[in-house]
Amino acid sequence: MKAEIISIGTELLLGQVVNTNAAYISRELASLGIEVYHHVTVGDNKDRLIEAVKTAEERVDLIVMSGGLGPTQDDITKKTLSDYLDVELILHEETEEKIISYHKNSDFKMPENNQLQALILADSTPLSNDTGLAIGMMLSRNKHHYVLLPGPPDELEPMVDNYLKNELIKHILEEQVLVSRVLRFFGLTEAQLAEKIDGIISEQTNPTAAIYANSGEITVRITAKAKDDDEGYKAIDKVETKIMEKLSDYFFGYGEKTLVEVVKDRLKEKDLKITAAESLTGGAFISELTSVTEVSSILEGGMVTYSADKKNKVLNVRKKTIEDFGVVSGECAVEMAEKAREMFDADIGVGLTGVAGPSSLEKQIPGTVWIGISYKGKESFSKHFHFSYKRNRNRRLAVLNALELVRRTVEDLPIDNREYYGEDNQ
Amino acid sequence: MKAEIISIGTELLLGQVVNTNAAYISRELASLGIEVYHHVTVGDNKDRLIEAVKTAEERVDLIVMSGGLGPTQDDITKKTLSDYLDVELILHEETEEKIISYHKNSDFKMPENNQLQALILADSTPLSNDTGLAIGMMLSRNKHHYVLLPGPPDELEPMVDNYLKNELIKHILEEQVLVSRVLRFFGLTEAQLAEKIDGIISEQTNPTAAIYANSGEITVRITAKAKDDDEGYKAIDKVETKIMEKLSDYFFGYGEKTLVEVVKDRLKEKDLKITAAESLTGGAFISELTSVTEVSSILEGGMVTYSADKKNKVLNVRKKTIEDFGVVSGECAVEMAEKAREMFDADIGVGLTGVAGPSSLEKQIPGTVWIGISYKGKESFSKHFHFSYKRNRNRRLAVLNALELVRRTVEDLPIDNREYYGEDNQ
Repeated sequence: MKAEIISIGTELLLGQVVNTNAAYISRELASLGIEVYHHVTVGDNKDRLIEAVKTAEERVDLIVMSGGLGPTQDDITKKTLSDYLDVELILHEETEEKIISYHKNSDFKMPENNQLQALILADSTPLSNDTGLAIGMMLSRNKHHYVLLPGPPDELEPMVDNYLKNELIKHILEEQVLVSRVLRFFGLTEAQLAEKIDGIISEQTNPTAAIYANSGEITVRITAKAKDDDEGYKAIDKVETKIMEKLSDYFFGYGEKTLVEVVKDRLKEKDLKITAAESLTGGAFISELTSVTEVSSILEGGMVTYSADKKNKVLNVRKKTIEDFGVVSGECAVEMAEKAREMFDADIGVGLTGVAGPSSLEKQIPGTVWIGISYKGKESFSKHFHFSYKRNRNRRLAVLNALELVRRTVEDLPIDNREYYGEDNQ
Repeated sequence: MKAEIISIGTELLLGQVVNTNAAYISRELASLGIEVYHHVTVGDNKDRLIEAVKTAEERVDLIVMSGGLGPTQDDITKKTLSDYLDVELILHEETEEKIISYHKNSDFKMPENNQLQALILADSTPLSNDTGLAIGMMLSRNKHHYVLLPGPPDELEPMVDNYLKNELIKHILEEQVLVSRVLRFFGLTEAQLAEKIDGIISEQTNPTAAIYANSGEITVRITAKAKDDDEGYKAIDKVETKIMEKLSDYFFGYGEKTLVEVVKDRLKEKDLKITAAESLTGGAFISELTSVTEVSSILEGGMVTYSADKKNKVLNVRKKTIEDFGVVSGECAVEMAEKAREMFDADIGVGLTGVAGPSSLEKQIPGTVWIGISYKGKESFSKHFHFSYKRNRNRRLAVLNALELVRRTVEDLPIDNREYYGEDNQ
């Protein structure tokens, strides 16, 4: 099956908004084996929308439109399709009730037009909107399938994921279910990961396996179309086993939990408190930990000691350590970790020191990083890294690699058998 | 003049890459008064590219293509245009030399194909690539103008900004120069700012004024087309004066410098050292300061005290302050600022405390934030904020508002005459 994506919105043509929807929809359709050959964007203009739909009808079976379902005069998508396909717009009562009740519970008076968001094309299958008011829909007519989705990504994405994909499977692809599983990896680049499992991925059409990189972590999503869940997960299991044969050492978790969330969970499970003393990362490591919820039971505080003087005077790193080894050293990183652990009564302490760049420090080049770990009942250790010449990439990679060292330490996994690094495409 | 943007790349249709180029090009064309009615994306496929170009020729004068200028077999844009327009591909010697010299200075052996990136369409105007190897170009033929740009945004954006816009001005719009100026504001939302200068912006066609919001800061870019620089800047001055009448109290600087960079510069100019004690922001404030270069002369370190116990035991905030007022209080924020200043020998100390959320703390709801400032020779003060229910939005807005309080304090500007907040669209 082939599809075409039409994005509707003058704000896209003015460049005020980047079109993330077309990429998102494409990726989800690809996971179903549906091919996309064109993305088209038009403004809030009836004639140009009809022209785009006509062109798409000549090329594909499935036309996915996003945008223009809101309550304002600019939101022309439903009216345009209603006129063009000669299909009535009718009230979707559930959505109407939702709109009324939403405004009852808020301080805002409901604008008259808001009920326009409850209109759907007659005979279409409604697609629920879990995060907004405008209902989506899918309509089949004259061998074509028309899908209408809201423009805001935080409404469109759950609608695609929770409803559209299953509708496509059931009614168009004539399969019963779609199941998927996400595996998360850290410590290699997207290209390195892809190379390791190249054969596995390219030989798959069902299940499909897709790789995404985001801020240092790599995810692999395995998606199976099947008659039922059981058959689907069995197919996924097989592919997962093959992938894990190559990548188990880089695996850190399933699902939507990022590395910092996994580390937080491990620390909570084991009732451990963490702290850090940071130099080159300047607070970014503790800030990453405190960006997730419910950390107060695992973190009481930490320290940023940017200058050598304050490493000694405030954190109590010995002068001799700094004089003998420099601040960019494993010895300094370990002592920072230990002193922070004492000061904040923690079970595990992390010391981060190095050269963020662009200038060198102690004749060491940017990207040189030492991470020290002090963990109760174990011998402290440090690990040396060399990242890049880019300041904020170095800071980010130091944070992520420190999290991974913490995870491996508290899970009692080997530390020295592999590279860490990861990819930062921020 | 009307334009159409054709993005070329199978990775876009698979959703592996979000198309930021179409938005970027649209925005830049809008600043020249060029209208865009369609974005089209096709894969690395000769027939579909030609079809898209033909369709665009029926609709517009200017066709801007991005992607497919690289050295691999997939990179078909130049060859396709060469065949379609019957224009030879010739070697651009400067680019060839650049490619050879680049590989001489690197560890990588030059792939044979790399010289393909030096080919341009005969009679086209080359567009230099300051950040990559593939040359861009503009060709005028049969009343149409064809622009070919590289796909990577970090190559395309400087090419558009530094070369394409001036070529369009000179050769197509028949004006002499294009000048622009960026004004930066903090402390109100994009919608509030837009409302304040609505009349000014809508009545402008030359200069144009465009508003962008990014991570709490709002920029207004004024762009003038003119015969020469002098005429252009005079026109910009007039619009700037009108805008500043409404917004001077929110203005913090010109150009590309963000709020944290402006704060860093002020501190350096005045030879002041800063520190912070952070609770709800958990290191994010100091991390923001250390994300910019050359901060070691203004920052020696800082402290994260997340628990009440460590506020007292490590930072030395008095037990009585915490008992009498709670940790979410102006009194605690001020004392945190003062204690951090003492500990790190700084001229200005910042204390950040509050409720990030989602849980409440001391019966205060998420979004409640107190920022304390301790500055040498002045009386310490605190300011109360109420942001939102979103944890990381609250943390981000606390960081930005603390930076703005520091700026106003060291510049001796009034503190209490306005709201701060700002918009966070992260």
